[in-house]
Amino acid sequence: MAKTVRVYVTLKRGVLDPQGSAVGRALRTLGYGEVQGVRLGKYIELELADGESDAGGRKRLDEMCRRLLANTVIEDYRFDDAPAVKA
Amino acid sequence: MAKTVRVYVTLKRGVLDPQGSAVGRALRTLGYGEVQGVRLGKYIELELADGESDAGGRKRLDEMCRRLLANTVIEDYRFDDAPAVKA
Repeated sequence: MAKTVRVYVTLKRGVLDPQGSAVGRALRTLGYGEVQGVRLGKYIELELADGESDAGGRKRLDEMCRRLLANTVIEDYRFDDAPAVKA
Repeated sequence: MAKTVRVYVTLKRGVLDPQGSAVGRALRTLGYGEVQGVRLGKYIELELADGESDAGGRKRLDEMCRRLLANTVIEDYRFDDAPAVKA
């Protein structure tokens, strides 16, 4: 049975987010003055075959994030397990 | 006090995700054979000034998503309130 893990990759605090600022300006222009700030990031759903122990699985997920999914110089990442996906 | 809302924009089921497939292939090439599927999406953190009632706020959020943050032809969106941000 496959397991879905959700990964969130966001810019580190202090890193400029020009895209986020542009979206914020656009929303305010559309009349949503309550928008004070916008930060954009990546949302990744990974479907993983079951098999690894939890600890082993988390270690490999950490590696996947560090090696490919996030640029750890400017980005932070976190992940959580979604409810199991019906095979 | 500002409120942070998190918006998740994902491709609709059935819509091809070439970027997700490319990331999946790359992860398997790096040795993570347990990766069966990858779907990429947008993760957006909106900082909103308090003021609107919950219902009013949700209605405006829905509008923001439909008008700008998501392409509702091929994308789904959902949002949840993060814990209040210390001003």
